[in-house]
Amino acid sequence: MRLSSLLFLVCFFTVAMSECAAAAKARHFRWEVSNMFWSPDCEEKVVIGINGQFPGPTIRAKAGDTIVVHLKNGLHTEGVVIHWHGIRQIGTPWADGTASISQCAINPEETFTYRFVVDKPGTYFYHGHYGMQRAAGLYGSLIVDVADGDEEPFKYDGEINLLLSDWYHESIYTQMVGLSSNPFRWIGEPQSLLINGRGQFNCSLAAAHTPGAKQCAAAGAAGNRHCAPVILPVLPNKTYRLRVASTTSLASLNLAVGNHKLTVVEADGNYVEPFAVDDIDIYSGDSYSVLLTTDQDTSANYWVSVGVRGRQPRTAPALAVLNYRPNRASRLPAAAPPATPAWDDFARSKAFTYRILGRAGVTPPPPATSDRRIELLNTQNRMGGGHVKWSINNVSMVLPATPYLGSLKMGLRSALPSAARPSDTFGRGYDVTRPPANPNTTVGDNVYVLAHNATVDVVLQNANALARNVSEVHPWHLHGHDFWVLGYGDGAFRGDAGDAAALNLRNPPLRNTAVIFPYGWTAIRFVADNPGVWAFHCHIEPHLHMGMGVIFAEAVDRVSELPKAAVSCGATATALMAGAGGHV
Amino acid sequence: MRLSSLLFLVCFFTVAMSECAAAAKARHFRWEVSNMFWSPDCEEKVVIGINGQFPGPTIRAKAGDTIVVHLKNGLHTEGVVIHWHGIRQIGTPWADGTASISQCAINPEETFTYRFVVDKPGTYFYHGHYGMQRAAGLYGSLIVDVADGDEEPFKYDGEINLLLSDWYHESIYTQMVGLSSNPFRWIGEPQSLLINGRGQFNCSLAAAHTPGAKQCAAAGAAGNRHCAPVILPVLPNKTYRLRVASTTSLASLNLAVGNHKLTVVEADGNYVEPFAVDDIDIYSGDSYSVLLTTDQDTSANYWVSVGVRGRQPRTAPALAVLNYRPNRASRLPAAAPPATPAWDDFARSKAFTYRILGRAGVTPPPPATSDRRIELLNTQNRMGGGHVKWSINNVSMVLPATPYLGSLKMGLRSALPSAARPSDTFGRGYDVTRPPANPNTTVGDNVYVLAHNATVDVVLQNANALARNVSEVHPWHLHGHDFWVLGYGDGAFRGDAGDAAALNLRNPPLRNTAVIFPYGWTAIRFVADNPGVWAFHCHIEPHLHMGMGVIFAEAVDRVSELPKAAVSCGATATALMAGAGGHV
Repeated sequence: MRLSSLLFLVCFFTVAMSECAAAAKARHFRWEVSNMFWSPDCEEKVVIGINGQFPGPTIRAKAGDTIVVHLKNGLHTEGVVIHWHGIRQIGTPWADGTASISQCAINPEETFTYRFVVDKPGTYFYHGHYGMQRAAGLYGSLIVDVADGDEEPFKYDGEINLLLSDWYHESIYTQMVGLSSNPFRWIGEPQSLLINGRGQFNCSLAAAHTPGAKQCAAAGAAGNRHCAPVILPVLPNKTYRLRVASTTSLASLNLAVGNHKLTVVEADGNYVEPFAVDDIDIYSGDSYSVLLTTDQDTSANYWVSVGVRGRQPRTAPALAVLNYRPNRASRLPAAAPPATPAWDDFARSKAFTYRILGRAGVTPPPPATSDRRIELLNTQNRMGGGHVKWSINNVSMVLPATPYLGSLKMGLRSALPSAARPSDTFGRGYDVTRPPANPNTTVGDNVYVLAHNATVDVVLQNANALARNVSEVHPWHLHGHDFWVLGYGDGAFRGDAGDAAALNLRNPPLRNTAVIFPYGWTAIRFVADNPGVWAFHCHIEPHLHMGMGVIFAEAVDRVSELPKAAVSCGATATALMAGAGGHV
Repeated sequence: MRLSSLLFLVCFFTVAMSECAAAAKARHFRWEVSNMFWSPDCEEKVVIGINGQFPGPTIRAKAGDTIVVHLKNGLHTEGVVIHWHGIRQIGTPWADGTASISQCAINPEETFTYRFVVDKPGTYFYHGHYGMQRAAGLYGSLIVDVADGDEEPFKYDGEINLLLSDWYHESIYTQMVGLSSNPFRWIGEPQSLLINGRGQFNCSLAAAHTPGAKQCAAAGAAGNRHCAPVILPVLPNKTYRLRVASTTSLASLNLAVGNHKLTVVEADGNYVEPFAVDDIDIYSGDSYSVLLTTDQDTSANYWVSVGVRGRQPRTAPALAVLNYRPNRASRLPAAAPPATPAWDDFARSKAFTYRILGRAGVTPPPPATSDRRIELLNTQNRMGGGHVKWSINNVSMVLPATPYLGSLKMGLRSALPSAARPSDTFGRGYDVTRPPANPNTTVGDNVYVLAHNATVDVVLQNANALARNVSEVHPWHLHGHDFWVLGYGDGAFRGDAGDAAALNLRNPPLRNTAVIFPYGWTAIRFVADNPGVWAFHCHIEPHLHMGMGVIFAEAVDRVSELPKAAVSCGATATALMAGAGGHV
């Protein structure tokens, strides 16, 4: 057999053929997760790092490659999992890295092997998905290039990777206790914003332009490498692809580069119709590629500024320096950093978001009709007097001790908290403009069982929170799928007679995360063609912790045999140990 | 069958007959462990509580009773176990509550049932035994009264329970990171000492007698109930049994009551020959009963003072008020609190400790000879340059992902870190008066396999730490057994020719915890008659975390079938799921 035939066969059996222009490769990583001292914003705290690094190592692969991460849990008493955000895990739902959903948390000193195909080029990231471990710093970048021989539908000369996050000085343990306490304690706004894990607390790199701020150590000066200013070297008159992703715990962000336009070309690992803007909004869970051309005065450096949107900011913008070589990196830009748009200028946010559309000739169109519509009302509620929860159709999600993928596949109904299935809709008369008439909620599993290959529409309906005149931004992230964003609207979704008929079926973008704006709705469509159990949830870490999510169970009977390590806990372990057999 | 015969049979099958004067009772408890905000010393922190209480609920039972604790883990991402300190767990080694040793840690949202017999009256306690969860506040009292119809060998009119601990403001997560870091970071001295979980930071109840201290809120005054002064009401001219136990993370303590003598009658759940003292030393892991007679001026209240010994104190004494009724509880004693003896007056500590002897006619004598002597050299060492460890015979203990009880019973040698067994002795020429000539150490499992029913002597040999002229106090605690303390000595143990011949075989006390003094040795004897896997370790929490312990594996083949929940992790779960069968 010739080599080319052999490669063909390898491709055939490992990835979708269309991605397999050249031989797919297995890329192996040995990682150990541990708590360590780190100073993301120059204040020393404990972070969760990987192999002694924060953020974790960047994975770089080509479409069609198989990623193999041998993940050892080096935490002392905590379990851990890692979710590969944006990777659909086609055929490998046990590798999605969601505790209580796709797998048992990895115990201390144990190693779990994540093995999955990155089937599609794009800008992705990974992060913890157990408790609030993401907010403790357990995240990193995952970048997938086109397969050899394939080409991106745009040109660029170089790349810059910007993984954005926010940072709290209070530990996640204390944060979780507060969120679960009665009376409830909110975590507040982050102390810092981080670019590639580095930020500055209580000082500004651009103090001259920031009233009352003291100057941080200058770019390039000796100091704590953990919080050294981020310098982005570029050559003049080139085009760069900025890969921007946000794994914030809470903050919605806006990114701008002084004097430079940004052309958006990718969102969440999918190409979009290019459009130029002065700045981009990035919600937690989003990723974008934007093209930037270094066509400005070559004698200057320029600020990259990342500020808070959507909530009244109490956190200073994060700054980085776009360093036109051969200028010195330490020469701070003379101009003021670009101002972040007003936090509550939602019209501006909507204008940006609405411009994101599928790329003509590249993005596949959605099915013309759907088989099922699930309407999910997002409300903030109280429980037991002082607890505060986020609820979906008035049920706040709690996760079980035994992960769903195993318990559903093995048919262990006793491991599921409820036999009653959640509702596909909510009361028509609900007034989204006022605090909930019934502020009380309950907890439940929120498991929606989807028929195999069904086309499913989900309408996310925002509403007023507990306080009057408050409605928040929520970026919803779907596991195991991309979805088409068919439309957005203000107020209550008007159903078949109204909004449903006006949805965009022509060129909607494919994404894995979509925001709902205050008092608004967002409609998405996806095909339930990936057997597994998938979380769909608000990507704001404390909101998820407060129950803001649902579970989609799809054709679990079609899932291949689960790795033992994914089910070696709870009721699945008990059943298997009692002799339910070696197969799951 | 008559009722008495039935009771007899119940007794026969549940507890040792001698303890079964009346019907043994099963006492059921439903506990949930969770993190919560608490202010043990008036500074708010996160503690691990049980059912919303800190310390956890007191268990009170009678000898022969069966304790059944349904323990739900309500922590968000951490495992948990509870060790029942001083309870021998005869026939129930899986209920000893040691993670990695006797059972799998209980996962979040899971419930494990501890079921065991308290076969012997005495003053016990319970605490977390995973990571450093004990130091986070996971502890409480366990008091076993004599069985109905039995009598204590001393008389008293009332009881006072004093569970002593120390308290750090830094979280255990941060503490553990520091202890595991390179460079090493020591946890330092505790911020406060607590009596029944209550203390005062940065103020004194006896400020008038404490230069520079500000007065805390007076006894009985309105304030934070978490840190309200401990008031101990007594009536004049009565005799009280003070049950005193220490679950400190680090501190060795001394307790005195102003103007009152204390008569020691019990140590670690075993009667001792009564003797009167002005104060008692209590090392972590110790428990005592002392009798106090309220024979002083009835118009006054008196201080109970608990201070630090054995290490240079940086922590203020904890104070409580012995409140002679009907005096007002809020009337602070006019006299100064009893002064804690000088921290480094080890001659005084030894004098106290050496007075503790078996009670004539009650404490059984030890076997006249032993089958094996294991000599354990305690040294402080470095590893990999900057890590600091405690080592036993130059091996620092690490614990495995799969608990020993399961892996040994199932014969899963792969789950044991090393086939080589640790040494019963160390180099004769070791100079205990100097820092280790070879400061480097390695890690290992330190598993000693003991023959069933063998009589085992252990000589704990203290030595100089890494720094010159430093040798610390280490209280060693044995699980699954009481042991006789045959003797103590200064310098190096001189073996058969010298010290071994001079050991006390006449009236040694039975205990479960014994201290080694700086540069000294302590010899104990026990009979390996309790099949199971038992930890033997320094009870100082950070020292254990740094590897200061060994494991005794006894006749594991004689252990009954293990509960599935005790082995549902790691290699035992994998083996059982693969069809090793339903029996372990």
